[in-house]
Amino acid sequence: MDFSSFLTSLGTSFVIFVVLMLFFTWLSRKPGNQVVYFPSRILRGLEPWEGARRSRSPVAWIREAFAATEADIVASAGVDAAVYLIFLSSVLGIFVLSGLLLLPVLLPIAVTDHAYKSLLETNSNSTFNNLDKLAMGNVHAKSSRLWAFLLANYWVSFVTFYVLWKSYKHVSDLRAATRSSQAVRPEDYAVLVRDIPADLQGQSRKEQVDSYFRALHPDTFYKSMVVTDNKQANKIWEELEGYKKKLARADVVFAESKTTSNPEGTRPNNKTGFLGLIGEKVDTINYCNEKINELAAKLEIEQKETLKDKQQAAALVFFTSRAAAVSASQTLHAQMVDTWTVTEAPEPRQLIWKNLTKKFFERQIWQYVVYGIVFLTVVFYMIPIAAISAFTTLQNLRKYLPFLKVIINQKAVKTILEAYLPQLALIIFLALLPALLLFLSKAEGIPSQGHVIRAASGKYFYFIVFNVFLGVTIGGTLFASLKIITKTPKKIVNLLADSLPPNATFFVTYVALQFFVGYGLELSRLVPLIIFHLKKKYLCKTEAEVKEAWAPGDFGYATRVPSNMLIMMVVFCYSVISPIIIPFGAVYFGLGWLIARNQALNVYVPSYESYGRMWPHIHSRIVASLIIFQVLMFGYLGLKKFYYAPLMIPLIILSFIFAYTCNKRFYQSFFNTPLETAYKDTKETPNLDSVYAAYIPPCLKPEKPDDVVENYEDEKTNVSRTSSV
Amino acid sequence: MDFSSFLTSLGTSFVIFVVLMLFFTWLSRKPGNQVVYFPSRILRGLEPWEGARRSRSPVAWIREAFAATEADIVASAGVDAAVYLIFLSSVLGIFVLSGLLLLPVLLPIAVTDHAYKSLLETNSNSTFNNLDKLAMGNVHAKSSRLWAFLLANYWVSFVTFYVLWKSYKHVSDLRAATRSSQAVRPEDYAVLVRDIPADLQGQSRKEQVDSYFRALHPDTFYKSMVVTDNKQANKIWEELEGYKKKLARADVVFAESKTTSNPEGTRPNNKTGFLGLIGEKVDTINYCNEKINELAAKLEIEQKETLKDKQQAAALVFFTSRAAAVSASQTLHAQMVDTWTVTEAPEPRQLIWKNLTKKFFERQIWQYVVYGIVFLTVVFYMIPIAAISAFTTLQNLRKYLPFLKVIINQKAVKTILEAYLPQLALIIFLALLPALLLFLSKAEGIPSQGHVIRAASGKYFYFIVFNVFLGVTIGGTLFASLKIITKTPKKIVNLLADSLPPNATFFVTYVALQFFVGYGLELSRLVPLIIFHLKKKYLCKTEAEVKEAWAPGDFGYATRVPSNMLIMMVVFCYSVISPIIIPFGAVYFGLGWLIARNQALNVYVPSYESYGRMWPHIHSRIVASLIIFQVLMFGYLGLKKFYYAPLMIPLIILSFIFAYTCNKRFYQSFFNTPLETAYKDTKETPNLDSVYAAYIPPCLKPEKPDDVVENYEDEKTNVSRTSSV
Repeated sequence: MDFSSFLTSLGTSFVIFVVLMLFFTWLSRKPGNQVVYFPSRILRGLEPWEGARRSRSPVAWIREAFAATEADIVASAGVDAAVYLIFLSSVLGIFVLSGLLLLPVLLPIAVTDHAYKSLLETNSNSTFNNLDKLAMGNVHAKSSRLWAFLLANYWVSFVTFYVLWKSYKHVSDLRAATRSSQAVRPEDYAVLVRDIPADLQGQSRKEQVDSYFRALHPDTFYKSMVVTDNKQANKIWEELEGYKKKLARADVVFAESKTTSNPEGTRPNNKTGFLGLIGEKVDTINYCNEKINELAAKLEIEQKETLKDKQQAAALVFFTSRAAAVSASQTLHAQMVDTWTVTEAPEPRQLIWKNLTKKFFERQIWQYVVYGIVFLTVVFYMIPIAAISAFTTLQNLRKYLPFLKVIINQKAVKTILEAYLPQLALIIFLALLPALLLFLSKAEGIPSQGHVIRAASGKYFYFIVFNVFLGVTIGGTLFASLKIITKTPKKIVNLLADSLPPNATFFVTYVALQFFVGYGLELSRLVPLIIFHLKKKYLCKTEAEVKEAWAPGDFGYATRVPSNMLIMMVVFCYSVISPIIIPFGAVYFGLGWLIARNQALNVYVPSYESYGRMWPHIHSRIVASLIIFQVLMFGYLGLKKFYYAPLMIPLIILSFIFAYTCNKRFYQSFFNTPLETAYKDTKETPNLDSVYAAYIPPCLKPEKPDDVVENYEDEKTNVSRTSSV
Repeated sequence: MDFSSFLTSLGTSFVIFVVLMLFFTWLSRKPGNQVVYFPSRILRGLEPWEGARRSRSPVAWIREAFAATEADIVASAGVDAAVYLIFLSSVLGIFVLSGLLLLPVLLPIAVTDHAYKSLLETNSNSTFNNLDKLAMGNVHAKSSRLWAFLLANYWVSFVTFYVLWKSYKHVSDLRAATRSSQAVRPEDYAVLVRDIPADLQGQSRKEQVDSYFRALHPDTFYKSMVVTDNKQANKIWEELEGYKKKLARADVVFAESKTTSNPEGTRPNNKTGFLGLIGEKVDTINYCNEKINELAAKLEIEQKETLKDKQQAAALVFFTSRAAAVSASQTLHAQMVDTWTVTEAPEPRQLIWKNLTKKFFERQIWQYVVYGIVFLTVVFYMIPIAAISAFTTLQNLRKYLPFLKVIINQKAVKTILEAYLPQLALIIFLALLPALLLFLSKAEGIPSQGHVIRAASGKYFYFIVFNVFLGVTIGGTLFASLKIITKTPKKIVNLLADSLPPNATFFVTYVALQFFVGYGLELSRLVPLIIFHLKKKYLCKTEAEVKEAWAPGDFGYATRVPSNMLIMMVVFCYSVISPIIIPFGAVYFGLGWLIARNQALNVYVPSYESYGRMWPHIHSRIVASLIIFQVLMFGYLGLKKFYYAPLMIPLIILSFIFAYTCNKRFYQSFFNTPLETAYKDTKETPNLDSVYAAYIPPCLKPEKPDDVVENYEDEKTNVSRTSSV
């Protein structure tokens, strides 16, 4: 890729960004779009904007995003969003601090040497562009200038250690502060019990759990809720809800038809058969009412039966105080470790009911099976990625798809294609994976949604490292160097280090594309806006349907965090080799931080809250990226025949010690709740009934909302007691 | 080593064994020796033997050892001894079950082949003896007879899995049963708190600990005991105890001198200077009384000062119930994981006070430093071992120590030397290590004696595997094969597998030597007997000194378990290659079990009780030995060019799965106390003051025994409170 196509790429990206920003400024002022641009504020019952919006400058959102405190973020989007922002700002901090020293020092050192020029003199085949001159590749082998690059690694590493240590401490404090607040959270009073052993005394599950926990926690045990097999009940409940929606819709249609010339209105009707296309024609309102009554009765019977006969070997146990629940969740209960497994209960909204009843060794086995599948996928996806990256060069396109020649040969099209094609292939490819990974992570038997997302995100990171970063880096030179490899088998590190410099420009362009186009789309919300307006116009009838159409969703950490990580990793690895990438990385994370703040304040609504449990995960992956960077630099300095390259080894060891120390000092309190943060609830007892009710799955809630707990509880004990007699 | 020297070795061993047994039968009947042969019974206040001993047959002890139940063992020598016996009986079980199939099947298959004979025909240099004919080495390469040897591996492995699973379950149940018994054990009510952070509010440590734990455990917190720096107090206390002993001794000497012709008696006197050799001559009784009064006063002042000013950042915290202590010990307390570290308290008698105050990261660092030292020692000890094993062949002795020629050339001496020399070198060598390893393990900062012994035993196991087993095996052929290795670098497994068969006879002899001579000495207790009688005659004056002279000590698991493990490992590895070793292994463990039972019932007194916490350690090392055996067999079958050798791989994987499953299912309840076993204390509250008093170190106990706790407690709070104002 030559320098002009690099500039074209930057230019077009920037133009797209400016256009999208103008769109955002214009569209977000229209009152009809408020639900798209400020859904979080609306859902929290706030005004979309304070004061008169129309008179505000187009950059007011920037001022607002800057002005917001961390407490505001926590209030509007939860601790997880705040932690995500800390991730962005930490990486930003690392790059800014690194750049402050590296740019003014390394660029002059590189540009005043002439390795590429002398290479060109000896071998007229080699090419280089203006960007390459600014990089480490332009320094002669064995040159004492390499000292500067070696020391730059130390600078980057120490900056990273400093920033990460501060951030970990900050996140830890933030987590402790929010967790020890007085607010009543149902999950603080509950523990999840799995692997309840078969009962020998013929008690029902409910009685078994009650007697076990009452004996072990005589003073603090409150109640238990045995997990039931809700498949059937859930099916009926969903059908019922469907008919309720249909009825509401039919009511609106009927009411609308009244206001026009026909004062009686036309009663809507539909066919009962497949997709409403065949079958008997019926009056929709009457039909739905009938069905609702029928299903409600059926549901009530099914609910009783579920509670009585479908009790499973898992339960939620409730305690009268937070400290008791915390202690219980961390204490080994049974001599046989694979029975009565006790863990902290997830939030009700993120419980994955199906996974609760999976047995201990079943979970273990599934975990390894999933690891195996992920490993195979990681390894064998490398082949298509490498193929795509080799295939989508223009020469190859011309060669294999000759019918595209006419288009490709046009100068402008050619330049743009050359700039974007490989990157586009990459982005599309990455969009296909998350669903698979979420599915696999769920199959492991993890009981909470937040944990599934962390697990999927971790797998995605492996993909990115192996397939995208290493894949593109080696892949780009794979076909060129395959012959060399087979003849003289080099070490993988050397091969990688060798492949890094030629790909620097590719990754600079990739980063720029990501933030200009990606962030432009993110902020302007063009896609959700269009979808919302289309739905509102053609599909939605009732208020509930409109609300559903603009529901903002959450941040989507499962894919968002790993793609930030990829950029971070790329910038890390090139930070010393080609320091010109650092400003791009800084802009990526700076702009990302600003926009994510705006989205956290105005747009996204969290679908669960894990109090920053993803931080240790993020932290260890940042450190892993740092170590990969150091190892590659060690290899590259070796390739440059620099005698002091082994001085990188202490740095690598230091990074491992840093990772170990952080892990020892902070990790445990993310995994378990410390008693310190849980004991401040002694002042007043919360309404434990509402805590209990929060965990009742919707399909088992009685139709009449009063006495929810009473009914549920009675049903379970009385009926089961008679059944066990 | 030829067959005749093998038989000589066996014969002499057996003769020694018989002689030692006769000694035992004869000596143990003498009433004067009761304290040597039945110290445990005497200390527990029982008669040395029930009924008339003299009329009993010499094998009565065998009947008794057989008749004792596990409960008897637990009562007399604790759960640890019972678990050690389970270890012996499990390995015995494995070998008996393996031998039942392997001996009748494999021996005929091996002996009817003629690989050695044909080797001899082609190469007259090679030698073999009658034992070798019974081994796998006698089977031709590629022979289909090797199927039997392959399947034998499966049989041995499955037998091991079965026995180990049963044993682990049995030990787990035993541990649970003893731990949930009603007896009051101080450690059940206490937790050990380390890494108490610096206090910012100017409270004393005591106040800080009290307020912290009272806030977190308002209902169950009883008291705390801050660890103090007792160095000075301990020094004075030891001096004081020394003078007390001296006084008692002088009193006896004085009393003895009275009864003779001199009715006044001669008052003993001594010199006050170095070793009693120089300095002023004083009357011992008066001098000691003076010193005792002086030191007692000094101790009292020092005790007050220690309790007031020498409080450290560690404490023991006591709870009002076992369940509360168990919960607290397993619950994370502080958000910063390296502060307020809480663990289960060790027994008072096995607390290592010096290690309690070591800080979190100090412990981490020391742990890795110790691992490093152990690693280096393991690696570099291999050289001397290999040298010794190569040096101590007779040819070499004759060559390098020509003055021994006269002795060596005698036929009988030659045979015995040839049989024993290498084994003796080994045994002496192994005797030097435990002290170093115990010292290193202590330096890791482990708070309890039992844990130190487990850690040392683990390190010793690595030594044994690498230095003794692999060292002798490779070392024996090292100098022979060094040239071959450097020319064609083989895999280590193949090298090992190659070296196994020639050493089979060596190890058979080694096992026999171990049990005949080792067990003979163990049972007859010749060494302690002689030492006791010498001490009693020439050194002991007072009753206390006599009692000290026959104090039996404990089992000494730190060296006992690893040396059993070495035998087990040797027998495992040769079980299929040379099945004739199995009966020797079975006798070793059978006889060992019988004698250990006798010693547990009559001799040894446990110095600590860990309720079988060493079992997971033993278990995983048995499995490790099994896996090493399987890997070696895989290599050896490969060397025999057996096409189906890869069928060993599933077996190896299966072993790993077995290890993983056992670990998951059982280990956690050895590491933490399950709540199930702790909650049965609700019936009556124990005397918590005596629980507390049990932990007061002897040097801080006031001279007057009444109100121990009151004094101690008052001292600590009152004085410290005034000091902190």
